[in-house]
Amino acid sequence: MTFNKQNKQIFQTSLWVCVFIFSIFSNAQDHPKLNLTKAGVAKIRAELGSVPLFDSSLATIKEEVDAEIASGIHVPIPKDFSGGYTHEQHKKNFLILQKAGVLYQILDAEKYAVYIRDMFMAYAKLYPTLPVHPQERSYARGKLFWQCLNDSNWLVYTSQAYDCIYDFLSKKERKYLEKELFVPFANFISEGNPQFFNRVHNHSTWGNVAVGMIALVMDNDDLLQKALYGLKTDNLKVGMKDNDGGFIKVEGQKVGFFANLDEPFSPDGYYTEGPYYQRYAMYPFLIFAQALHNVKPEYKIFEYKDSVLLKSVSTLINLSDSNGDFFPINDGQKGMSYYSRELITALDIAYLFGGKNPELLSIAEQQGKVTVDDAGLAVALGIKNNEAIPFIKTSLELKDGPEGDQGGIGILRKDGIELVFKYAAQGLSHGHYDKLSYSLYNNGHELVQDYGLARFVNIEQKGGGNYLKENTTWAKQTIAHNTIVQDETSHFNGAYEIGSQYASIKSFFAAENSDIKIVSAKESNAYRGTELQRTMAVIKDENYSFPFVLDVMRVTSDSVHQFDLPFYYLGQIMKTNFSYESPKSLASLGDKNGYQHLYLEGKGVIDQENITLNWLSNDIFYTMTAISDKNDEILLTRIGANDPEFNLRRDPGFIIRRKNVKETIFVSIIEPHGSYSPISEFAVNAYSNIEKLSVALNDEKYTAVEIVFKNGTTKLVFISNQNNDKNTNHQVIINNKEYQWIGSYVLLNK
Amino acid sequence: MTFNKQNKQIFQTSLWVCVFIFSIFSNAQDHPKLNLTKAGVAKIRAELGSVPLFDSSLATIKEEVDAEIASGIHVPIPKDFSGGYTHEQHKKNFLILQKAGVLYQILDAEKYAVYIRDMFMAYAKLYPTLPVHPQERSYARGKLFWQCLNDSNWLVYTSQAYDCIYDFLSKKERKYLEKELFVPFANFISEGNPQFFNRVHNHSTWGNVAVGMIALVMDNDDLLQKALYGLKTDNLKVGMKDNDGGFIKVEGQKVGFFANLDEPFSPDGYYTEGPYYQRYAMYPFLIFAQALHNVKPEYKIFEYKDSVLLKSVSTLINLSDSNGDFFPINDGQKGMSYYSRELITALDIAYLFGGKNPELLSIAEQQGKVTVDDAGLAVALGIKNNEAIPFIKTSLELKDGPEGDQGGIGILRKDGIELVFKYAAQGLSHGHYDKLSYSLYNNGHELVQDYGLARFVNIEQKGGGNYLKENTTWAKQTIAHNTIVQDETSHFNGAYEIGSQYASIKSFFAAENSDIKIVSAKESNAYRGTELQRTMAVIKDENYSFPFVLDVMRVTSDSVHQFDLPFYYLGQIMKTNFSYESPKSLASLGDKNGYQHLYLEGKGVIDQENITLNWLSNDIFYTMTAISDKNDEILLTRIGANDPEFNLRRDPGFIIRRKNVKETIFVSIIEPHGSYSPISEFAVNAYSNIEKLSVALNDEKYTAVEIVFKNGTTKLVFISNQNNDKNTNHQVIINNKEYQWIGSYVLLNK
Repeated sequence: MTFNKQNKQIFQTSLWVCVFIFSIFSNAQDHPKLNLTKAGVAKIRAELGSVPLFDSSLATIKEEVDAEIASGIHVPIPKDFSGGYTHEQHKKNFLILQKAGVLYQILDAEKYAVYIRDMFMAYAKLYPTLPVHPQERSYARGKLFWQCLNDSNWLVYTSQAYDCIYDFLSKKERKYLEKELFVPFANFISEGNPQFFNRVHNHSTWGNVAVGMIALVMDNDDLLQKALYGLKTDNLKVGMKDNDGGFIKVEGQKVGFFANLDEPFSPDGYYTEGPYYQRYAMYPFLIFAQALHNVKPEYKIFEYKDSVLLKSVSTLINLSDSNGDFFPINDGQKGMSYYSRELITALDIAYLFGGKNPELLSIAEQQGKVTVDDAGLAVALGIKNNEAIPFIKTSLELKDGPEGDQGGIGILRKDGIELVFKYAAQGLSHGHYDKLSYSLYNNGHELVQDYGLARFVNIEQKGGGNYLKENTTWAKQTIAHNTIVQDETSHFNGAYEIGSQYASIKSFFAAENSDIKIVSAKESNAYRGTELQRTMAVIKDENYSFPFVLDVMRVTSDSVHQFDLPFYYLGQIMKTNFSYESPKSLASLGDKNGYQHLYLEGKGVIDQENITLNWLSNDIFYTMTAISDKNDEILLTRIGANDPEFNLRRDPGFIIRRKNVKETIFVSIIEPHGSYSPISEFAVNAYSNIEKLSVALNDEKYTAVEIVFKNGTTKLVFISNQNNDKNTNHQVIINNKEYQWIGSYVLLNK
Repeated sequence: MTFNKQNKQIFQTSLWVCVFIFSIFSNAQDHPKLNLTKAGVAKIRAELGSVPLFDSSLATIKEEVDAEIASGIHVPIPKDFSGGYTHEQHKKNFLILQKAGVLYQILDAEKYAVYIRDMFMAYAKLYPTLPVHPQERSYARGKLFWQCLNDSNWLVYTSQAYDCIYDFLSKKERKYLEKELFVPFANFISEGNPQFFNRVHNHSTWGNVAVGMIALVMDNDDLLQKALYGLKTDNLKVGMKDNDGGFIKVEGQKVGFFANLDEPFSPDGYYTEGPYYQRYAMYPFLIFAQALHNVKPEYKIFEYKDSVLLKSVSTLINLSDSNGDFFPINDGQKGMSYYSRELITALDIAYLFGGKNPELLSIAEQQGKVTVDDAGLAVALGIKNNEAIPFIKTSLELKDGPEGDQGGIGILRKDGIELVFKYAAQGLSHGHYDKLSYSLYNNGHELVQDYGLARFVNIEQKGGGNYLKENTTWAKQTIAHNTIVQDETSHFNGAYEIGSQYASIKSFFAAENSDIKIVSAKESNAYRGTELQRTMAVIKDENYSFPFVLDVMRVTSDSVHQFDLPFYYLGQIMKTNFSYESPKSLASLGDKNGYQHLYLEGKGVIDQENITLNWLSNDIFYTMTAISDKNDEILLTRIGANDPEFNLRRDPGFIIRRKNVKETIFVSIIEPHGSYSPISEFAVNAYSNIEKLSVALNDEKYTAVEIVFKNGTTKLVFISNQNNDKNTNHQVIINNKEYQWIGSYVLLNK
């Protein structure tokens, strides 16, 4: 180390000591105090130019804000849906205002404060003149935007800007802005829209936080209490629903920020609407938690509910594939990832206030950006000091429900294979009717897809960027998912009121073995009188390069039904081992419950014990091998029927249809086994390694599946269907041979 | 520079001088002498450990060969098609043998020579016992493989191995191998299969080179003359065809290696079958050229035909998109690229023997590998010495035909947009009936696709990895391409004999302006009595971020017809400005000429002046704006009808159909204009920038198109339809306003 560097370090340490002393003696209620703090700003200024990731993040927002300032102030009269000009301009404004506030504090350059003040003045002039937004689609119309949700976004961001220039403004200016803009704004989205504010939903989280943020800036306890605990009276009727069919008022349900933490978050930090909405809610949750922690530390918000807010950030990272894209559970739009601005903020805050977990730094490195505030500085410093260690995503179970007793999501990971098995609760109004469904990924590529939502968020050409009707007619329906459909009707008959009452029940989850990771769950309410039990395992055989997935779906009903088990592989069929007829023209498979959106491309009637479908996707060869019953029908399908506006993707599917059964079992294996290179033109291991798949035993107590491989070896998987005690000793006799094991399952070589 | 390094340099220089002197005085006919030379080996040995890319390439092949040696020698009795075990094993053998030879020479490790000798002995034992291959599909069945083509591959690679261990073997061993294996092998693929050996085709190139390579090793002038000039007599009938419908014997056509250089290569280095086959032929062309140059320098092979072989390497690089993937012209499989082993070899040879063009080094850097021989060392040294400069792919014309007078390929490039316009000759048996067709790329993503071939090369599940019947019924047909179809019949009625007689005729090609790059060509033979003239331009308006493509197709016929202009965009439709009806069930659009493979997904009858199709592809928004005639029909299509085995991709298309016209003009613009991020969920510039597109003038002499932009500006593009002299002054009066320009075209602001 050179002499110069030592000098610099000593200088910096002294400076920090000063900052620290200063921060103790200064009035903690000085502005800024929410997400930037006076002490934080001093520390940031001291470090400027020496922390690369922070400096580059700062430079990026400076460039962006400077360009916007140069273009002038634009506060148009609200008119458009999302995607349209006025919507996008107001959205841009709040994002820029927040950043300009940060720049004012850090760079101490008055032009940013002036810009914010002038913009606020323009809003203060406009706002009192505004009726509700002219677009009438929302159950809670805003004033700047077509829905209160976006108005709340606006206030969450602009509160931070107001905090940053609070001391810059004169008392008179503040009084004016609060009277004309901020207080009426907060009142409108709370008292003015109880159906929006007083619920448990990501919408109301934004509403609560918006009111809470501005309350903290203005030191307005009345608003803060509303934010934290909701409106005391709301005159809402139990059973009211929003545009998406979600409940607004539920008997006895608490409301406000804390209720929105209590209810949708499970103790594992899983948010019941799924990761796409968790990501969306993460920003208000964490940004407000940080502000509350700084201004009202007595609430101990980061310790609340066993530190669920901090935990939820790691949970969310675990809910992403190897590219960082979130699994599109429920109404999730594909492509959303932990690279989103919300996750950058959430991660930085979780790092600073959650004990500086060095794994988070490796994700921040990938994000390549930090928030320009106290939290972002901490992360950038950690990276600069080489403290990052890899964030290893492992197999894990994420329980759903406020108490963690409403099923969950089981994620099994092995050598690039990621299986996402869903046995959770309904997921509020964004939930899909897909009990015991799954999706499958191979190194970040979808191999068996969950369709996600039918919407193009913010793309105006597609229904104003809002939910498309195909979201209801297709994406939410059971047939759109990789799970059982009875008699061509969706789970719970697609009725939200009923679906919301039930969650599936986990039988067991075990990921400690390296050769088999397994999860099993039951669903008894999706169809009255029918019990579904699905067990899924990721198994690695040392003789083969790739792990494979075993899928065992037991169906037990009190009457005969038709059962469809769809399977939405992505890729192109290479070969099937069964014959099928191809219709000359394509008709839809049905006329409701999602079937109206499937074309039938081929139909086979089976008279063999195993069927195989071999396909190529992203240069990997896969085979599904399924046990078939005589007279099973195989339906080769394609999404896109009755979709005149091309709102749906033309993706393929494969359905095993079994008619007139009361009890049955569907068993299959999905197996990556080889690869193709269009450059070398080598096809390696293009065929399945499985010779035969059969059910060795299936009764109330046990199911056993036998897998014979082409290399002559045989494996048996035993599943205990009733007793899931980890220590119980089981014994089973098959063909005079006795098998013994302890616990819910076992993988044996025969 | 340290003293040690200087010492090392002096030592190395001395060593090279020794090597050089040694090489002058040694017998030039010592082995190895083909692609490795004695002098080259000495130089390589001296540099070992100091040239990173060479060392890593060597390490890779060493690892591969060592693993293969460990697994033993496998010389199975031939049985399978490509993709099957025996095919893949014999293929692996020849690739490994060649590499083992190199390792023996460079590492001087006897085990490699022993392995090669033993493998050769096994082949020498097997070969005389072999009948022709049991698979009967080929017009020229091999013995080790199902076609002589693959047998020739085998000999091209193994000749190099033989060269490397020539001196290691005893005279007796050599005599045995030549008598039992090499000479009969060479005879079988030449005298034994004149229909394969005596033609102009990539097949016979491999055959000629195989015989030539082994001739050079064995110093057998008889075989060498056959290789270079073909068999003197072949008893083949003029008009014979191969399995793909390609001519075997053409009246008066020369044969042999030189003929295969004369005929398919244009003076620009374009190979008439297209880049996929050029790549395939590149390996034998260059590897044999290198060998011939080393052993028989008197042929001056690298200077032949104005150094066409060296030129062709750069041509091939220019025939790739920004990812290095070749444009899938004719029967080209998508995904093939300049990362292929053939291109690594070809590039290294072209570098060493073509004046060490430093641009090639930047491609070699991307390839990340060099051939382990003299040429590869030169490239690796160039890279090590930081001599690489970027290979800039610009707009260029590649003329087709032996004399460069059979049309060509025009490539227009601007800011990531690559337009590939085809007005070439038929392209031998791998040609498609797609006169004046085009494809379009944006930063390496296909935006308007050329379908490529209907085949899964070496994927046994799909018809043994061979051409599928859909290659004929779909991929070769005109409707599968982005060009005019008259009366639902393909160009030349799909008759190869007729198509082979004609090429389109270029009108002009101009790429010197930065705001417009333009190409125009005519086709008068595709449909008797109908003249097609297509002009395509890539235009950049400084007001907008992206360049756009203008497409003007003039049709002049002596009788009335129906004209279809298809357009295979990739992506999802966002919005159209025209209404259409969507059939309840999907039927095919026709019953022959490729139409039987298209489903009709929507049909609109137009009563407006401009139609627009707005779509999203790879997160970029595009719009096609086309001038429409009243009563034009718009057909929204999808590939996949009558394709029970899922051999075709389910890709969308869009056809403008105009009925009962003699003369007409189709004008359209394809315009990238914005983007979407699924992470930020921002949609930027989601709509077209074009207000109106119209034909300002269209007569025998001139066509003028007017483009009105949404920002109020207007542009005019003038095309001279008859006089393409660069210096001619043109003047035109439209609406009393006079326009003047010099040359074939002009872009004017109105």
